[in-house]
Amino acid sequence: MGTSLDSVLAAAASAAAPAAASTPTVRAGWLDAVADALDAAAAELIPLAAAETHLPEAPRLKGELARTTFQLRLFGDVLRDGAFLGATVDHADPEWPMGPRPDIRRVLVPIGPTLVFAASNFPFAFSVAGGDTASALAAGCPVVLKAHPGHEELSTRTGAIVREALAAAGAPAGLFDVIHGVEDGVTALKDPRIAAASFTGSVAGGRALFDIAVSRPTPIPFYGELGSVNPVVVTPGAVAARGPAIAKGYAGSFSLGAGQFCTKPGLLFLPAGHGLDEDLRAAVTAAAAQPMLNDRISSGFTQRLDEVRGAPGVEVLVAGGTDGSTFTPTLLATTAKAFAEADATVREECFGPASLIVTYTDQAELLDVLDGLEPGLTATVHGEESEAELVRGLLPSLTRLAGRLLWNDWPTGVTVSWAQQHGGPYPATTAPTTTSVGTAAIERFLRPVAWQGFPDALLPDALQEANPWQLPRRTDGVPPWARNRE
Amino acid sequence: MGTSLDSVLAAAASAAAPAAASTPTVRAGWLDAVADALDAAAAELIPLAAAETHLPEAPRLKGELARTTFQLRLFGDVLRDGAFLGATVDHADPEWPMGPRPDIRRVLVPIGPTLVFAASNFPFAFSVAGGDTASALAAGCPVVLKAHPGHEELSTRTGAIVREALAAAGAPAGLFDVIHGVEDGVTALKDPRIAAASFTGSVAGGRALFDIAVSRPTPIPFYGELGSVNPVVVTPGAVAARGPAIAKGYAGSFSLGAGQFCTKPGLLFLPAGHGLDEDLRAAVTAAAAQPMLNDRISSGFTQRLDEVRGAPGVEVLVAGGTDGSTFTPTLLATTAKAFAEADATVREECFGPASLIVTYTDQAELLDVLDGLEPGLTATVHGEESEAELVRGLLPSLTRLAGRLLWNDWPTGVTVSWAQQHGGPYPATTAPTTTSVGTAAIERFLRPVAWQGFPDALLPDALQEANPWQLPRRTDGVPPWARNRE
Repeated sequence: MGTSLDSVLAAAASAAAPAAASTPTVRAGWLDAVADALDAAAAELIPLAAAETHLPEAPRLKGELARTTFQLRLFGDVLRDGAFLGATVDHADPEWPMGPRPDIRRVLVPIGPTLVFAASNFPFAFSVAGGDTASALAAGCPVVLKAHPGHEELSTRTGAIVREALAAAGAPAGLFDVIHGVEDGVTALKDPRIAAASFTGSVAGGRALFDIAVSRPTPIPFYGELGSVNPVVVTPGAVAARGPAIAKGYAGSFSLGAGQFCTKPGLLFLPAGHGLDEDLRAAVTAAAAQPMLNDRISSGFTQRLDEVRGAPGVEVLVAGGTDGSTFTPTLLATTAKAFAEADATVREECFGPASLIVTYTDQAELLDVLDGLEPGLTATVHGEESEAELVRGLLPSLTRLAGRLLWNDWPTGVTVSWAQQHGGPYPATTAPTTTSVGTAAIERFLRPVAWQGFPDALLPDALQEANPWQLPRRTDGVPPWARNRE
Repeated sequence: MGTSLDSVLAAAASAAAPAAASTPTVRAGWLDAVADALDAAAAELIPLAAAETHLPEAPRLKGELARTTFQLRLFGDVLRDGAFLGATVDHADPEWPMGPRPDIRRVLVPIGPTLVFAASNFPFAFSVAGGDTASALAAGCPVVLKAHPGHEELSTRTGAIVREALAAAGAPAGLFDVIHGVEDGVTALKDPRIAAASFTGSVAGGRALFDIAVSRPTPIPFYGELGSVNPVVVTPGAVAARGPAIAKGYAGSFSLGAGQFCTKPGLLFLPAGHGLDEDLRAAVTAAAAQPMLNDRISSGFTQRLDEVRGAPGVEVLVAGGTDGSTFTPTLLATTAKAFAEADATVREECFGPASLIVTYTDQAELLDVLDGLEPGLTATVHGEESEAELVRGLLPSLTRLAGRLLWNDWPTGVTVSWAQQHGGPYPATTAPTTTSVGTAAIERFLRPVAWQGFPDALLPDALQEANPWQLPRRTDGVPPWARNRE
């Protein structure tokens, strides 16, 4: 191992104890300081990001940086709220039905140094200071950030700003650092000092890293957000009520950011005889040519697109093109029957500006084809409230398929809030019980510890009888809301 | 695959949708019905368990069955409480700082059919109707239970009682069934219809199953509770104040159930010159000979014990013996220095009636040797409150090592309550963010789903605006306890 990587890992390991000993309120201050420093550096960072990623400065990168600093501050709110600690107090109870109960108290503690693999497609929000970093730091875990090669300079610069802001805010040395290169990333993933890892990217890349994480002598949790086809079902009623608007919204969503969103709608299910071909062609043809993030992604896209286009029964509604550096979107179409009979490749994610329309003849056929889909991050219905019976028949299948369901909307916007869920059954994620966006993302980097029979003075503050942090705590089974009702 | 196994898996898959559609209150009724049926069958089940496991009927098996039915009913309380659903409502907010927020609502849903591998050492509480089954059924997941070969008949009979009770209570057909044999267990673990698995047992067995679970084309969460050495640190003050009582408590704890508890104290750290050798010898020699659960466990124990006994610097304080069917306990001793220099085998779990005393000369040496230990389920301190400074110096190391910390108590009792934590960093468990005992065990079998922009009539009950289930919900970031204060 290189001296540099070893010193980063050693520093992260050294930071684990002081980070774990920090109070949530103090950590909220660290996150605020990082957010302030990034906002202050916007004029430097945004052009750097644009140069390396080909993404437009406004509104895209400007909005993404705002999302990133908002996210850091929202985790500050989570820390000040305190519910994330899950503090629970059970007093000793000689009458406990299964036998006398000792005094036992439970709280979550940081899991330890965390390795975060940055994504290519969101150089701020899913990269150096993105959601994984924010939630791991909020949890009290040191973060070793593996930079994405698609924006190395931005990563180095963002990393320096984060480090300086943390140091100025009094955070422990070694709490955060950036490493580069696949080899160092893999070496770090195998290192016993790393206690958890997270990743956003392709199925192939994420699965390879997951396999390494779980094959270690000491396997560690690996939170990989991988691929998703994001099916969208349009009902006959929705076509009749607002078909052209749906065609336009769809084209905008699947071509957004050159289709390089993990929530890109890759499949649109339309009733046979929908009559929207002209609207779809017009909407897709109107989309501007856009550059891809990097050569690896554009060549991968071209190859996947050729596979899908070549599948039996797939026809081309709009043939996208490329001038070598930019791409216009491609729209393909097939029938549910041909789709079900085709090789699995037509049902998998195609990362880039392309999507496939699948026409269905009736609800039974639609349900059959949905049941054959891989799970993913999202599933969407465009329908009318008057079709409630039809829609209710689809919801169990869609719930099985995804972590987020949408109604009359498009999946490419992912808000950051308390109720957000960005995850789903594999291959959406390698950890289907978790989310990588929203306040619950912090749960990935915490583990529970119970304290049995300790005198008050030796208990952590969160569990002391007087509740010095004024945390919401379940006590003897009574939740904090019931307690307040008394 | 055998027809019988295939039909069990097919039935579990068919039960997933109706189970997911059941309300928590209805599922609480199912669990109560199972608990009542098992209590009613105690006179049949306890002698059957005793015959197969060699465990004494009273108080051990009688107490264990009481614990098991209590646990089922406690999960009923969890279901009626509703907080486990994590229902969260964020209304649309055009002023949300990162950009307009859609209406988004989050709730947990069952992960799907779950395969539970039963343990040998608790034929009720960690077997057919044990904690994993109770928590998975509570979550709304069908359960396929792989019986432990150490109590096949008890497993078959318990399984029949559970199935009948569920059917009589109106639960979906296929919600629960029992399978037998390693081959069927492994086949089921690889089956795409299984969405999660849990296990309690040895490191070798659990790791082999974990490796299968994570190597599937679609990897699944595997909750394995494996091995633990459960270190106990005794301070100089505790030795001075009540050394003989500690010696007695230790002997009782490590020899309990012939040492076949995953929380057996395998290491006792005593200050050098503790002067307790005679008390320890007397306490250990007084322990009665007890049979082991089965031949595989007794031969495994004998082999591991020979390894530890043969390590350099290890001396025998009490040589246990066996008449071929029962064992008396063995007590070994070494110094911190010899322990640190010895092969890793002395630091690993030895499942059976044996334990190792490690003497330390000062706090620095103690901390060094603790830092070299594998993590586990528990870590214990016997100390005096007047030694708070010394103890505070140990707590960060002990917290790193375990999921449950104990003060002046013994780890072999594991209460079932809201604050319990039975888990820890690997090899205590393969999933260090979770617990297998206590109400939080239900979290393992739930995954989050967010609903974006749905009309009220199409939302699940838990998320509808009028809150028909009267769940505690965080709404627009405001937690339920703050809401009640208004």
